[in-house]
Amino acid sequence: VMVVDWDISQAERGGYPHFMLKEIMEQPDVWSDALLGRVQNQRVVWREMGLPASVAETVRRIRIVAAGTAYHAGLVGKMLIERLARIPVEVEVASEFRYSTPIFEPGTLVMAISQSGETADTLASVRLAHELGVPTYAVVNQVGSTLARESDYVVYTHAGPEIAVASTKAYTTQLLVLTLLALGLADLKGRGRPDLVQHLLSLPHIGQTLLGQLESVRQMAESLSLKRDVFYIGRGLDYALAMEGQLKIKEIAYIHAEAYAAGELKHGTLALIEDGTPVVAIVTERDVAEKTISNILEVKARGAEAWGILDRQITGDIPVDHQIVIDTPDPLLAPAIAALPLQLLAYWTAVFRGEDVDKPRNLAKSVTVE
Amino acid sequence: VMVVDWDISQAERGGYPHFMLKEIMEQPDVWSDALLGRVQNQRVVWREMGLPASVAETVRRIRIVAAGTAYHAGLVGKMLIERLARIPVEVEVASEFRYSTPIFEPGTLVMAISQSGETADTLASVRLAHELGVPTYAVVNQVGSTLARESDYVVYTHAGPEIAVASTKAYTTQLLVLTLLALGLADLKGRGRPDLVQHLLSLPHIGQTLLGQLESVRQMAESLSLKRDVFYIGRGLDYALAMEGQLKIKEIAYIHAEAYAAGELKHGTLALIEDGTPVVAIVTERDVAEKTISNILEVKARGAEAWGILDRQITGDIPVDHQIVIDTPDPLLAPAIAALPLQLLAYWTAVFRGEDVDKPRNLAKSVTVE
Repeated sequence: VMVVDWDISQAERGGYPHFMLKEIMEQPDVWSDALLGRVQNQRVVWREMGLPASVAETVRRIRIVAAGTAYHAGLVGKMLIERLARIPVEVEVASEFRYSTPIFEPGTLVMAISQSGETADTLASVRLAHELGVPTYAVVNQVGSTLARESDYVVYTHAGPEIAVASTKAYTTQLLVLTLLALGLADLKGRGRPDLVQHLLSLPHIGQTLLGQLESVRQMAESLSLKRDVFYIGRGLDYALAMEGQLKIKEIAYIHAEAYAAGELKHGTLALIEDGTPVVAIVTERDVAEKTISNILEVKARGAEAWGILDRQITGDIPVDHQIVIDTPDPLLAPAIAALPLQLLAYWTAVFRGEDVDKPRNLAKSVTVE
Repeated sequence: VMVVDWDISQAERGGYPHFMLKEIMEQPDVWSDALLGRVQNQRVVWREMGLPASVAETVRRIRIVAAGTAYHAGLVGKMLIERLARIPVEVEVASEFRYSTPIFEPGTLVMAISQSGETADTLASVRLAHELGVPTYAVVNQVGSTLARESDYVVYTHAGPEIAVASTKAYTTQLLVLTLLALGLADLKGRGRPDLVQHLLSLPHIGQTLLGQLESVRQMAESLSLKRDVFYIGRGLDYALAMEGQLKIKEIAYIHAEAYAAGELKHGTLALIEDGTPVVAIVTERDVAEKTISNILEVKARGAEAWGILDRQITGDIPVDHQIVIDTPDPLLAPAIAALPLQLLAYWTAVFRGEDVDKPRNLAKSVTVE
C-alpha cells in the first residue's frame, strides 16, 4: 500500500500552496476563455457582448457603478471607452451612488461590475436605475447571480470560480471584457480599431510568457514585506492600475498602501516620502511617460526606493532601483498585463509576512451586506 | 526704555505661534468677507458671482478641474450643485485632465479652482478648454493671478493672503463660494432655496462659537500624534470632507492618513484596521447617518479607536470613543463648519510631533511646475 501525501484541497489548488497563486497563474487560460468567440475577422463579435446593437447605438453616456476591485476595473473601462468610442463615462462607488439621487440624462446606460453578482450596494444601484427606467447592463463573473438576473443585459467574464478573497483573475477578465466593449462600441460608431482587436488575441500568450519571468518580483516582495507604507503612482491607465495594485497589498499584506495620480503627489503626499519609502511607479502610458519619470525623480530626491513596472518601449534613463519590464502590443492593452506583477508582488509580500493569503482578516469574498 | 519681546513676524501672525493657527482662527472673519455683498433678500446676488446670468443659464454640464485641497473643495461643489441645481458635475484632477483628450459636450462650462491661481496643471487645463472653445470660469483667491486673467470669468474667494503651506481658510472660502454658486444656479433654474441662503449668513457666527469650544481636539491630537496611520470615513459630503481631513494630516504631521467612502471599507481596507487604529468618522449627512454608524461599529469590532465629528441633530447611540459635536443649520452647509475641527486636529497633531507646521518638508505653497 502506498501512502500519498496529498489532500483534496491541494488538488483543488492544482498543486499551488494557495488559491490566490493558482488563480494568478491561470489568468492566461481564463483570458482565452473571456475572449473565446468574441473576436472574429479583427472585429468584436457584438452579439457575444450581451447588449443588443440596437440598444448600444442609442447609448450617449455610461454610468459605471461598482465597489472595490470592480470599481478599479471600471476606471480602466472609462478611459478605454472614452478614448476609443468617445462616449462619456462616469465611474461611481456603489455605496455612494445608491444614496446620491443621481441625475440621469437621456441616453444613459448604467453598467454594474461585480465578480459575484451579489454585491449589495451594486445591486441596490441597479435597482435604483431600474426604478427610474434607466437601462442596466451587468459585467458579472457568476452565472445566474442576482445581478445577472436583475439587470436588463448581462455579459459574463468567464473567469471560473475565484476562491481567494483578493480578486485577481476576476479583475483581469473584467478588464478584457471592458476592452472588448470599448472596441465594439467604437466599431458601432465607425471608429473601429482592427489592429487592437487583433492584438487582444495575443494577450494570453504574452501573459503566459511574463508569468514565467517574474522571479524578480520575489526580491521586491521580500523588501516590501519589511515596510510599513508603500505608494503606487501612475498617470491615466497606470493610475487606475495603481489603485488596484495598492488594494491588493492592503487586503492580504496589511501594509498601508495608497495610490496617487503621479501629478498629484506634489499637492501634499510628497511630505510622507522619506528615506527608504517604497514607491511603485507604473509606466505604460507612453505619451505621458516623460511626465511620470519626472515624478519618479521627485520621490527619489526625497530618498524613496523607486520600483518600476515599465513598458519595454519606454526607453531612456528611468531612475528606478528595481524594475519589471513588460511587453505590450499597445498601451491601451497594458492594464491586464501590468496587473500580473502587481498581483504577484502582493502575493509574495503576504507570504513573506506569513499572512493567511487566501483568507485575509476582516474581509469576506463577496460583500452581500451594506 | 522698555524692551518689548515682540518681533515683526509674530506681529504678522497676529500673536499666534504659527500662520496656520492664525489662518484657522480668522476663518469666521474671512467667511464674512466671502459672503459680503453676495446675499440679499434671501437670494444670491448673481452679479457678484463673476459669471453673467446669460452664460449661466446655458450651462448644462460643469467640469471642475483642480489639484490637492482645491480638488477636495470641488468634490463638495459637485454634490451641492447636483443636489441644488440638478446640473451634472464632474470633478477631475488637473494633472490627469490636461492629458486626457476630454470629451466636451455642448453646454459645458469648465470651472477651475485654485487658491494661488498659478497651479500649473490647473492653468494648463483651462488653456486646453480655451483652445477648444469651451467657456472657463475660475474660483480663485489671488486677485490678478494668471488663472484669473486667462479664464473667461472669475469669482474671488476673498480669503486674504494665506501664508501656511497647508491650506485652511482658502479651502473653506472655496466651499462658501461654491455653495453660493450652487444656490445661485438653483435659483436661476427656479429651484431657489431662500432658507439655505439665509442660513449661510449665520455660518461666521457658528464658526466663531465652535472655534471657542475645540479645546478637546488637543486631546485627540495628542493621541493621534503617537500613531502611524489614521483613516477618515464618511458618506456623501462627509466623504469629500474626509479627503481634505486626511490631506491636512499628511501634509503637516507626516502620518499616513487616508480617506474612504464609509461603504467602501469592507472592500479591502478593513483588513488594515487593528487594535488601536484611529478612525475619524464624519457624520453630518443626516439621511445616511445610520449607515455610517453601522460602518463605525464595523471598525470598532476590529479594535479601532473611533473618533467622531458629529452633527448635534444626529441622535441615538453613536459608538465613538471621543467626539466633537458641531451645530449646523442644514447638512448642506456642514462642510465649512466640520472642516474647523479637522484642521485643528491636524494642526495640534503636528505641534505635538514637533513638526515645522507652516513649512512642511518637501512641499511648496503653490505648485507652479508640473
